Amino acid sequence: MNADAKIVQKIQMNVSQELILALDAMGGANAPQVVVEGAHLALERYPRLKFLFFGDEKQLIPLLKEYKKLNAASTVHHTDTVVDDDMKPAAALRVGRTSSMALAIKAVAEGVASGVISGGNTGAYMALSKILLKTVKGISRPAIASYLPTERGGETVMLDLGANVACDELNLVEFAIMGSVFATDVLGYENPSVGLLNIGEEDLKGSPVLRRAADYLKNYPGINFYGFIEGNDIAKGTVDVVVTDGFTGNVALKTLEGTARLIRSFLKEGFSGSLIGKIGYFFALPTLRLVFQRMNPSRYNGAIFLGLNGIAIKSHGSTDALGFSNAISVAVDMLSHGFKAQIEKNMEDVKVFLAQAELEVKTQG
Amino acid sequence: MNADAKIVQKIQMNVSQELILALDAMGGANAPQVVVEGAHLALERYPRLKFLFFGDEKQLIPLLKEYKKLNAASTVHHTDTVVDDDMKPAAALRVGRTSSMALAIKAVAEGVASGVISGGNTGAYMALSKILLKTVKGISRPAIASYLPTERGGETVMLDLGANVACDELNLVEFAIMGSVFATDVLGYENPSVGLLNIGEEDLKGSPVLRRAADYLKNYPGINFYGFIEGNDIAKGTVDVVVTDGFTGNVALKTLEGTARLIRSFLKEGFSGSLIGKIGYFFALPTLRLVFQRMNPSRYNGAIFLGLNGIAIKSHGSTDALGFSNAISVAVDMLSHGFKAQIEKNMEDVKVFLAQAELEVKTQG
Repeated sequence: MNADAKIVQKIQMNVSQELILALDAMGGANAPQVVVEGAHLALERYPRLKFLFFGDEKQLIPLLKEYKKLNAASTVHHTDTVVDDDMKPAAALRVGRTSSMALAIKAVAEGVASGVISGGNTGAYMALSKILLKTVKGISRPAIASYLPTERGGETVMLDLGANVACDELNLVEFAIMGSVFATDVLGYENPSVGLLNIGEEDLKGSPVLRRAADYLKNYPGINFYGFIEGNDIAKGTVDVVVTDGFTGNVALKTLEGTARLIRSFLKEGFSGSLIGKIGYFFALPTLRLVFQRMNPSRYNGAIFLGLNGIAIKSHGSTDALGFSNAISVAVDMLSHGFKAQIEKNMEDVKVFLAQAELEVKTQG
Repeated sequence: MNADAKIVQKIQMNVSQELILALDAMGGANAPQVVVEGAHLALERYPRLKFLFFGDEKQLIPLLKEYKKLNAASTVHHTDTVVDDDMKPAAALRVGRTSSMALAIKAVAEGVASGVISGGNTGAYMALSKILLKTVKGISRPAIASYLPTERGGETVMLDLGANVACDELNLVEFAIMGSVFATDVLGYENPSVGLLNIGEEDLKGSPVLRRAADYLKNYPGINFYGFIEGNDIAKGTVDVVVTDGFTGNVALKTLEGTARLIRSFLKEGFSGSLIGKIGYFFALPTLRLVFQRMNPSRYNGAIFLGLNGIAIKSHGSTDALGFSNAISVAVDMLSHGFKAQIEKNMEDVKVFLAQAELEVKTQG
């Protein structure tokens, strides 16, 4: 059963529920068109969704009129203010409080909507979400997570993808717990394995931070800790949850995207470069389409801000309508689970564990 | 003209020269078979090569007998000692001095061979190379570099790929200079552009180390500094030289390799999964072969230890004979250039520049 089928099944279980989502209609390169079209596609998939659009009503109202069902399921909340793509998070906190992004987040904070989706400035989005939604009790820093395709089949969850450049061992332990709960509750994995991203050279194996994080995770009974993994293990699917700092995670994710594009361009070049290539392309097209679809970044669009009191999903700034609709699907998927409560419970457990571990170290010392 | 043709041309220019290479015959998963077969393939390409094999003569002599020409071009230097794959660099320095790896490096240090190739333990190889070959004057830390295919065509040089986990701004500046000289002298790029690998989130853009490195590089006239780049820029070929610390570089390289494998496996699955797929595969095969060949890690095998007084090439531990022969080609390619002198010259320039920059900071302070 693929991810979409799983989501649809879960939604059908909660068929009576009405889900209201807040959309930052102005975030991302092709906003508001892509946001409106994405919402339209998502509504086809989940007919019980309702949308609150935050943004420029002069642009939004005519766009929505093109989709009758969507128009009926939507309300528009006007604002002129937009968070620019190059606005620093600190500036967004000062001047962005009435922006489409902030108002959409506020709708979740105030309980008007169950989740927010934005394709805008990631740093600003995270900063505003932290302030407006607050972090889950016990979590010091939220992380950005996403799921990725793997060679073994199924998906792997990876975090942090860019929220925290520098991380200490306790941040990494928190990421491991959040990722593990996410893989269990949202992806339905049993006892998901967790790997710490590292490099293979012996002497270098693990900066002190990574080694200390591994020591904690090895001994914490709530986590199925696999150990260190390397970059090639991400796509291999060696573990269900890949834990890393936000710098490394962001570089790895973008390297992965870039490589997929490179191969796609090599294939295109190969098939268009000669007559035999063109003939081959004709016959291979159905298969190539399926493979490209499977690798399509739109399919994996929708990064999750984990560790907040509310569901906030980041859509890629340059995604298409299909991609935006998938980001909405991720929100829907998270809504059908008691994700937050599970994290809180785990964070209490881990605190007890960490306090004991510290005590042991002191006793030994 | 592709890389191989360029190498052949250069070699033909130095047709009278006899090139002696030292091979660690015991390094890597499939040693010594792959080493012997790789040398055989390389000799077909460059008939004037001579090889010194270091390792177990009981295994080597019968293997070499299978290749008449290679046997005539080779000498075997027996040793029983081998550096294990999981031996720590410090241990290799203590007990590995008579190993096949150390003896092969020594052959270069003593001027008996012009370059060394090993598929063994990277950490040990780097540690032994530093001790035996010493670093180029002015370079504080050697780096591991490799070239990678790009979407724009041509190759990009990336370093460091794992020699230095934690780097300060001056290490990164050194890497930029070494990478730039390498791209100019070995790849033949004119005024190659240099990018610092970073992440895109505004607030996070650059740890202090990255920002300081960028400040130096912006102002240093000897480098064509492009600025910060992101993970997807590696495969895109946005710059000619990608500079990063050894941790990030290693993760990015392995993520790239893992993604290429993932797509290959998706394609295989796609083409074998249905009748239409199988028919498509039949017609697409010639093109797919070319594309896979272009992405074949063997083609890009041979990482370079930059910054040493001598040419040391690291072959991937699990490569095949073709891959090992390409690692030999990298050594041959570097031999036909005055690479070391160029780096020394640049390091003198940069020292003057850095001293002036420091003086300016002090004067301003």
